[in-house]
Amino acid sequence: MQLLSQPSCFKKQHVLSVGQYTRADLHLLFTVAQEMRLGVQRSGVLDLLRGRVLCTLFYEPSTRTSASFDAAMQRLGGRTVAVAAGQSSVQKGETLQDTLRTLACYGDAVVLRHPDEGSVEVAERYSDVPVINAGNGSGEHPTQAFLDLFTIREELGTVQGLTITFVGDLRHGRTVHSLVRLLRHYQVRVQLVAPPGLELPEGVREELAASGKLRGEWAALTGEVISRSDVLYCTRVQRERFGSGDEYERVRGAYRVDNAALKHAKASMVVMHPLPRNDEVAEEVDFDQRAAYFRQMRYGLYCRMALLALVMAPM
Amino acid sequence: MQLLSQPSCFKKQHVLSVGQYTRADLHLLFTVAQEMRLGVQRSGVLDLLRGRVLCTLFYEPSTRTSASFDAAMQRLGGRTVAVAAGQSSVQKGETLQDTLRTLACYGDAVVLRHPDEGSVEVAERYSDVPVINAGNGSGEHPTQAFLDLFTIREELGTVQGLTITFVGDLRHGRTVHSLVRLLRHYQVRVQLVAPPGLELPEGVREELAASGKLRGEWAALTGEVISRSDVLYCTRVQRERFGSGDEYERVRGAYRVDNAALKHAKASMVVMHPLPRNDEVAEEVDFDQRAAYFRQMRYGLYCRMALLALVMAPM
Amino acid sequence: MQLLSQPSCFKKQHVLSVGQYTRADLHLLFTVAQEMRLGVQRSGVLDLLRGRVLCTLFYEPSTRTSASFDAAMQRLGGRTVAVAAGQSSVQKGETLQDTLRTLACYGDAVVLRHPDEGSVEVAERYSDVPVINAGNGSGEHPTQAFLDLFTIREELGTVQGLTITFVGDLRHGRTVHSLVRLLRHYQVRVQLVAPPGLELPEGVREELAASGKLRGEWAALTGEVISRSDVLYCTRVQRERFGSGDEYERVRGAYRVDNAALKHAKASMVVMHPLPRNDEVAEEVDFDQRAAYFRQMRYGLYCRMALLALVMAPM
Repeated sequence: MQLLSQPSCFKKQHVLSVGQYTRADLHLLFTVAQEMRLGVQRSGVLDLLRGRVLCTLFYEPSTRTSASFDAAMQRLGGRTVAVAAGQSSVQKGETLQDTLRTLACYGDAVVLRHPDEGSVEVAERYSDVPVINAGNGSGEHPTQAFLDLFTIREELGTVQGLTITFVGDLRHGRTVHSLVRLLRHYQVRVQLVAPPGLELPEGVREELAASGKLRGEWAALTGEVISRSDVLYCTRVQRERFGSGDEYERVRGAYRVDNAALKHAKASMVVMHPLPRNDEVAEEVDFDQRAAYFRQMRYGLYCRMALLALVMAPM
Repeated sequence: MQLLSQPSCFKKQHVLSVGQYTRADLHLLFTVAQEMRLGVQRSGVLDLLRGRVLCTLFYEPSTRTSASFDAAMQRLGGRTVAVAAGQSSVQKGETLQDTLRTLACYGDAVVLRHPDEGSVEVAERYSDVPVINAGNGSGEHPTQAFLDLFTIREELGTVQGLTITFVGDLRHGRTVHSLVRLLRHYQVRVQLVAPPGLELPEGVREELAASGKLRGEWAALTGEVISRSDVLYCTRVQRERFGSGDEYERVRGAYRVDNAALKHAKASMVVMHPLPRNDEVAEEVDFDQRAAYFRQMRYGLYCRMALLALVMAPM
Repeated sequence: MQLLSQPSCFKKQHVLSVGQYTRADLHLLFTVAQEMRLGVQRSGVLDLLRGRVLCTLFYEPSTRTSASFDAAMQRLGGRTVAVAAGQSSVQKGETLQDTLRTLACYGDAVVLRHPDEGSVEVAERYSDVPVINAGNGSGEHPTQAFLDLFTIREELGTVQGLTITFVGDLRHGRTVHSLVRLLRHYQVRVQLVAPPGLELPEGVREELAASGKLRGEWAALTGEVISRSDVLYCTRVQRERFGSGDEYERVRGAYRVDNAALKHAKASMVVMHPLPRNDEVAEEVDFDQRAAYFRQMRYGLYCRMALLALVMAPM
């Protein structure tokens, strides 16, 4: 863990956007995450952040992300102070900057989830302690993108040379946006499969196309698309995105991954999903070794431990 | 604490029903609970689960049970990650099994309270880490039954040979059902006192009668019933169980324990209650040494510490 | 930290009202708080309350106070069990005394916020472990008054001889009431500035006047009042206190502190506010070194650490 005492772009810095990081930065993060994996398997809790306090401030509920950061901090030997904004002074009309400055008095870093994209600028401007963006509206969710990439590396050995297929609602999933942006650092081929109206936002798509990595776009998940994939990255398709229930029922079959769909897949392919899922991935798939989405959460724990350690470890 | 390193039916196993345990298992649990009592009195927090993380997942609110598990885990030197299901991905329609598998990625065990009786089967089938049932609808609440039995042992020296009287709503109290089932391991006499319509469910009653331990049934708490009792186990009678407020007012006096009622009791009798109470036990009783219900919660802390240690301690 | 092992009026005692403390008691508290400041700066977390568990029981939401106590306890090496009363057995009709006695079984002290002034008497009568009042309705908020006084000492070196001006809604702010009462121990001059109808309650005002410390009362904040002040203590003026929005708009300018107002102030004056604020203190003031309200929260952490250590440290 000598890596933690070296200077890096993480140390005492905000983590707001995947755009802040080079491939070398990611390499450092993943190397530390692998150490975390070994450390947790060996002793459950490490002592790297003993004496540190992390505040979590969630303006939107989230089991997964808040519990994951909480567990990550505690497995580093640190302490967590959780603030659910629903029951906070926000109700008394306090601004985000005042709440952040308050928590900066009590903790050594803040994990923030907020419905407004602009929340990250407020954090950058006003917080004296590092703020980690855990989702800013339909903006970014950088730690999810880190853990997605780490999952691919751990499951398949490398990201280089892979064909990665994104399936589902690519418009609203900030997870996908952040991950696609991170993939610019790697030699990959990307396939996009989305229902009409739920395609990747134009800006993200343009950037991807300009990089020469966009392999093709489809309106339905076909056997051929699956057969070329090394990673099948599924996202939640929410009924409420569709005008009518009928419309939803008509398209959902075209994006659903089940055992029949997996017949077309390579033996080494992995199915990923940021969870929670609706029925885009059938439960029967859970029993297929290619289903990586529960392991993905475990990788998330290691990745967030690595990030917290890199940001918060004492000099 | 060498007991913790020995093989036992608790180690790394689910705790779903009192039916899993023999009298020897209970003996082990209570022996460890006594050690916990001494340990807490001596040093406040032990270090037995250092490096372990417990997730608590409550789909129904509960001060007592969740705070008790949280305190128990922390007094063992471990860490707790609390998830209140009201503010979780459950709102996004996630299934119980997916939520459980998520928490199994972050923690080393999960404490689950859920309104459905079937939740324990889901836990058994899907969770990779031990799940401790903290109440499944009107099914069971095994750790409450353990602590009730431990309370009787600690207060009266033994369970053997005692006369135990259950009073109040015996139909809906899962606490009573679990405890009655556990009592099959002991030579006891059981008296049942319940308003018409709130008697013990037929299945539980049959089992008790078949074992020859059912001493009698009454529709009101009489001086004679009290005078024979070594343990008076009261349960909450909820107004909403009755058709009308009048009906409630008419019967409640017949199940209320106050100082007048205690005049009939042995000096060594103990009054127990799982709490919270309404007015089944008058506040004046709190000042009588026979009122054991606050001590009962303290025993609950030791008992849950013992259980967590037996389930989660490293090899 | 030998101070903690000496007998004091804090050790294992309730902290319910500022009226319990002499000037010597406050001196002890502030001396320990200074040690805490050094300790946190040096090592983040101290080990003084290792093995101790603090329960926090909030019947009203509060980011600031509950997070502050949580962080304070954890920075002392202790553990926190948080109970939000909204999701507790209170919903099942449990009395405050029963809930307190429950938590006393799990923790070594309880921090209580409750909307009823009478809650402190219940705590005093029924709790076996020390209860710290974190706000009882419009009664008191003693730890806020402690930290306010500590802030003045740390910022200005002493409280003696200062002119302290209270501005805003002096009627409803329990913070102001507690602080004014504490100031009886010091040689100070007090100026009161409040909108008509929101003046200091008669009892508190009488006591202050009788002590000869009341320097004057105004209905608006003037340059002259500011120029005499060493401390400008602002409080939140809530729109809903006024009959109509018009009325509020008309008076709010008379109590607002902005850069123009600060032109009249001494270079050494400090602006304090218990937070959260509405717009009584303009955001532009945040960038003036005299704005002490964020530092005030940091002092609050040290002060609450000192209090918890004095109350809960082992013999």
